[in-house]
Amino acid sequence: MIHTDAVVIGAGPAGLFQVFQLGLLGLQAHVVDALPEPGGQCVALYPDKPIYDIPGLPACTGRSLTAQLLDQASPFLDADRLHLGQQVTRLEVSAQVPLGQHRFTLHTDQGLALCARVVFVAAGAGAFLPRELALPGLKGRPGNLHHHLHADSGAPAPWAGQHLTVAGGGDEALHAVLSLLQAPSPQAPAHITLLHRRDQFQAEPALDAAVREAMQQGRMHLVLGVPQSVQQADDGRLLAIDLAQADGTHTHPTDHLLVQLGLSPKLGPLADWGLPMARKQVGVDPATFASGVPGVFAVGDINTYPGKKRLLLCAFHEATLAAHAAAALLNPDAPQHLLYTTTSPLLLQRLGRA
Amino acid sequence: MIHTDAVVIGAGPAGLFQVFQLGLLGLQAHVVDALPEPGGQCVALYPDKPIYDIPGLPACTGRSLTAQLLDQASPFLDADRLHLGQQVTRLEVSAQVPLGQHRFTLHTDQGLALCARVVFVAAGAGAFLPRELALPGLKGRPGNLHHHLHADSGAPAPWAGQHLTVAGGGDEALHAVLSLLQAPSPQAPAHITLLHRRDQFQAEPALDAAVREAMQQGRMHLVLGVPQSVQQADDGRLLAIDLAQADGTHTHPTDHLLVQLGLSPKLGPLADWGLPMARKQVGVDPATFASGVPGVFAVGDINTYPGKKRLLLCAFHEATLAAHAAAALLNPDAPQHLLYTTTSPLLLQRLGRA
Repeated sequence: MIHTDAVVIGAGPAGLFQVFQLGLLGLQAHVVDALPEPGGQCVALYPDKPIYDIPGLPACTGRSLTAQLLDQASPFLDADRLHLGQQVTRLEVSAQVPLGQHRFTLHTDQGLALCARVVFVAAGAGAFLPRELALPGLKGRPGNLHHHLHADSGAPAPWAGQHLTVAGGGDEALHAVLSLLQAPSPQAPAHITLLHRRDQFQAEPALDAAVREAMQQGRMHLVLGVPQSVQQADDGRLLAIDLAQADGTHTHPTDHLLVQLGLSPKLGPLADWGLPMARKQVGVDPATFASGVPGVFAVGDINTYPGKKRLLLCAFHEATLAAHAAAALLNPDAPQHLLYTTTSPLLLQRLGRA
Repeated sequence: MIHTDAVVIGAGPAGLFQVFQLGLLGLQAHVVDALPEPGGQCVALYPDKPIYDIPGLPACTGRSLTAQLLDQASPFLDADRLHLGQQVTRLEVSAQVPLGQHRFTLHTDQGLALCARVVFVAAGAGAFLPRELALPGLKGRPGNLHHHLHADSGAPAPWAGQHLTVAGGGDEALHAVLSLLQAPSPQAPAHITLLHRRDQFQAEPALDAAVREAMQQGRMHLVLGVPQSVQQADDGRLLAIDLAQADGTHTHPTDHLLVQLGLSPKLGPLADWGLPMARKQVGVDPATFASGVPGVFAVGDINTYPGKKRLLLCAFHEATLAAHAAAALLNPDAPQHLLYTTTSPLLLQRLGRA
């Protein structure tokens, strides 16, 4: 169990700047994010698209902005405090522990437990999780049903030497197929089928062309259809998918199924934490960005208040006021006058710039 | 008379980003500032001090941030819309003109008149004006009493070949003395006296040392004392200053007096515009940053609302929400859904990035 001042849920721009502002105020934070890298939807959805409305940055990208925010937060954030690839599944409030002490316990799906005095929900539209393929009648989570192609670790892939079906028609699916075709023999499937609902992809032209070429060369096949039902072995293992095709239903046997439909934000367990919400957003007080649960704050796209605009620059303001409100809650006797990084020796010392 | 959608009072970071956000929303703005260059107190008071808390800019300075904000606003701000070195002295509200039309007329001390549909007060702590020297008994504004050394225009200086007294003991005064000592002969005074209340300066060591050296070389003189009264000619011209000195009052004759006591923010006429204020700050609604006068918004250090922190990053948020509120006021029938610079062809076209 890790004890810390604050847990920030979400390592997107709002969460990273939240850590920075907490650090300036002398508060230590740990960050949890479902994605394998920081940056949130900025990095997951539009890493290289230019962004023109960050104040003082005439042009940047999701990736470059994230790098800058990580650099800025670095005096207060190291690898030990950044918990990636895991989702917070449970938030426990110990009502008998006084507000300001360690009354919050957060549990992740990887078994991590964090005990905190305040919590910041900077979860954007929710945790970015792999989109599921609709497989009517599926029972349990078969061991040969996979989501998300992981970076090559050198270990033998579960589908090595077998028949792998990749589901999807976007960048993620086509990219996976091309990577797998180039995989060295100990990891490569014996055969690859791409499963999509129609003979048209929504992918970058270069990926599209490369996959079409591989199909013509017979290095892989395309199967069209929409899953209607599945056939599973006694141990739950997936044996085949029954596909609705133009000329009726056909059975498509496979050894493994890799679903590559991209990422989709899921509010998930957060909806059950007792935070007063409206339209999947946490209502907050714009003076403090406090949620309806004392000690829990919400900043960025996840929150709502009169006038709310879902813009990064607004999230930065929200994180700043939330940090100050949390500091006032945790240290009610400390002087609350504002210090500036241009002039305050204390802030410069915390930043390592003294 | 210039007609425009918006007038922004103040060309500091808040005012510059206000212009950018208005431009994104298709609204044209003119900016007025009392200072001779943009950047507000960032540039006037701490141009080269590092700032560490601008989101996504791990380190910048007042000067570099201003340059970046000017660059960012450049699609919407040219020299014709930036009115520097003049103070807005009067704000007229034509109550019979409907809200949303050109009901506001602003007058500056340089005779400029601007007619606008909405007004944004981004005036920080007020207009930065030269600090005055207390000259008891002074009548009128003598033509040989000057404030603020202007950049050398090549034209003959009013004090050329005459006796100039420079008042002050800080960076501004010492810098002026050293500049004047190096001025080419058509502009140079015949003699320079530095007038300060004591034989100690509050200036950078390098400036201090250079002035001390010039004194030792007899290239200028230091006179100590505090003005008690002045002697003026019939036409109001200043003839001499009576100075309280350690051994009594002495008369210090001079041809010109240049007061170099630095800049000080003055709320000035703004206090008389009928905006509901508390402690020299304009009260605003944090959903819109609207002041108590419909159509007039206030952003940055000049405003106040629950939770207010006087930080640049908060001013950026305020300017953004104020721009959206103004756009909703001016175009009540336009769709109000949020457009993003990453994806909106309309915004990219307005930015000149299409």
